[in-house]
Amino acid sequence: MANNVTIALDAMGGDFAPEIVIKGAHIALTRYPDTKFLIFGDEKKITPLLKRTKLLKQASDIIHTDDIVTSDMKPSLALRQGLKSSMGLSIKAVAEGQAEGIVSAGNTGALMVLSRFILKMLAGVDRPAIATLIPSLAGETVVLDLGANVECAVHNYVQFAVMGALFAKTLLAQIEPSIGLVNVGEEDIKGNDTLREAHHILQNIALPGLYQGFIEGNDILEGAVNVAVMDGFTGNVALKTIEGASRLMSEFIRQAFYSSWPAKVGYVFAKRALNKMKLRFDSRSYNGAVLLGVNGIVVKSHGGTDELGFANAVGVTIDMVAKSYNERVRTLFEALNVSDQFFKKEKTS
Amino acid sequence: MANNVTIALDAMGGDFAPEIVIKGAHIALTRYPDTKFLIFGDEKKITPLLKRTKLLKQASDIIHTDDIVTSDMKPSLALRQGLKSSMGLSIKAVAEGQAEGIVSAGNTGALMVLSRFILKMLAGVDRPAIATLIPSLAGETVVLDLGANVECAVHNYVQFAVMGALFAKTLLAQIEPSIGLVNVGEEDIKGNDTLREAHHILQNIALPGLYQGFIEGNDILEGAVNVAVMDGFTGNVALKTIEGASRLMSEFIRQAFYSSWPAKVGYVFAKRALNKMKLRFDSRSYNGAVLLGVNGIVVKSHGGTDELGFANAVGVTIDMVAKSYNERVRTLFEALNVSDQFFKKEKTS
Repeated sequence: MANNVTIALDAMGGDFAPEIVIKGAHIALTRYPDTKFLIFGDEKKITPLLKRTKLLKQASDIIHTDDIVTSDMKPSLALRQGLKSSMGLSIKAVAEGQAEGIVSAGNTGALMVLSRFILKMLAGVDRPAIATLIPSLAGETVVLDLGANVECAVHNYVQFAVMGALFAKTLLAQIEPSIGLVNVGEEDIKGNDTLREAHHILQNIALPGLYQGFIEGNDILEGAVNVAVMDGFTGNVALKTIEGASRLMSEFIRQAFYSSWPAKVGYVFAKRALNKMKLRFDSRSYNGAVLLGVNGIVVKSHGGTDELGFANAVGVTIDMVAKSYNERVRTLFEALNVSDQFFKKEKTS
Repeated sequence: MANNVTIALDAMGGDFAPEIVIKGAHIALTRYPDTKFLIFGDEKKITPLLKRTKLLKQASDIIHTDDIVTSDMKPSLALRQGLKSSMGLSIKAVAEGQAEGIVSAGNTGALMVLSRFILKMLAGVDRPAIATLIPSLAGETVVLDLGANVECAVHNYVQFAVMGALFAKTLLAQIEPSIGLVNVGEEDIKGNDTLREAHHILQNIALPGLYQGFIEGNDILEGAVNVAVMDGFTGNVALKTIEGASRLMSEFIRQAFYSSWPAKVGYVFAKRALNKMKLRFDSRSYNGAVLLGVNGIVVKSHGGTDELGFANAVGVTIDMVAKSYNERVRTLFEALNVSDQFFKKEKTS
């Protein structure tokens, strides 16, 4: 399945571009040997880096671009000036069929608007959602939206539930993923009208998974469901709060091991196991957020990640392509006649 | 200052009422020896519990109530049927000046509507907010709103910032607390119109603290500010996500120490230090969420807490009373002529 996938790389996006992009692609190639890469960016910077890896060099073409989307560029400006940037051209390569997926560690807002503009939406999907996997007590959980939509309408939540469930089926191989809608309580009366209407629709339609109703914030990491659906504001704050919690607890643990002589001795014995544990919560292991709903596989790597993190984002991209995620969304939305069933009918009933 | 504070207790609220209420009040009394308690609830259940603690018995009066607000009672029903319940009457004791603060581990929604109805709002405050302290890399951080308002208008955010800053001044003794408004990014253009307008007002008015602008989810636990202001939906999900993160990491740590023999040995050495560390993140240590903005000190204890947690909630109540939190809010709102300055002027400008 994963044979001969071609991935477009925005070599100029992220805090440590293009170094970690090239190093990350090299690592990804050792994991997925048949992958081809189209590398978009400043040839003068990329060529010397590629010389260090014969493997990647043979599997890659460099497409030189002068333009760059900077990390602080407003999306509106990126849309006007970014079409010929490394980001814009790498997305275009997917639109034109030269590549099947694209990875960028650059400006998230720019990546969203350029992807939407260049690739267009999948039929039946109104707005994109950013989704990722995070570790949970049950293994891994799909969370979306992580910031593409500050506010959501009823049909956005419903579409996110469908796309998120297919995401869980694709990446987690869940046969019947369970889906929860994040709210401030589990009772039907909780939340606002939009959430309650989405809840009502989700209870009454055929989904590629099992809708379990409203869930609360703690349920996300406790793994109460396979797919946690939120608006992009809540999802963004929740995910970043988890980052903060992880840092706080790591610091508390560090202080605990430094707080006494027995604790220091204990650390020496437990170090190996603790480092393994740390990896389970390592943001690099979960790097690679997917922009669901656009007509092409677009993956956002964290801007500050290292080559291992970037390699994981490339891996997610290859997986999404190889497992035909977008075809599955397209087929399902067509079969369900989603645009009628989810919105129009329910809205007028 | 803390002399002779009288606290009303809803003895029938919470999962383990009235046992933990009585035991918790006993512990609180050993910490604040001059406190008096008015205990509202089922006399037959309370009297035998009080017999075990001579100290608390001497400092308490029992006021018998037949009615109870159940944990699943809808707020609207609680408002109709709860006025003579242990919860309703304990709030009434504050309204009538028999007590200066009230603690309940019962139904949060009911506590909010009954408090608002019986105590009314402080002049100048439109809606209450639930606030609490949580541990952070900088020590402790005030977070609000944690669920009183699913949606917020511009002036709600502004009022929450004022009340939250005074809360930090009162409980954390911060002279000039720093305040942040939680958003999906730090740039002025992030978020929605409501947040951006609140941001603009907060940048331009005199506050009992220093407004530092938009912050992100990770900043909350990293302690980037002393006061993190959010709408109640976001705050509720964020706080519960932290609970989930804490449980997940505790489980990962537990598994790490069980994963090998050296790790098990390490645990024996480090156990004491790790247990101390655990206490720093223990939700009991931070039990006691305050309903800010109502004309009386109302504190919500977690429904599932134990006597130590409940004692902490009583401590928060005594602190809020002794340090005249509501008088400070009242004085400040009057001095600022808040209702004009924050909303009307800015809204029509």
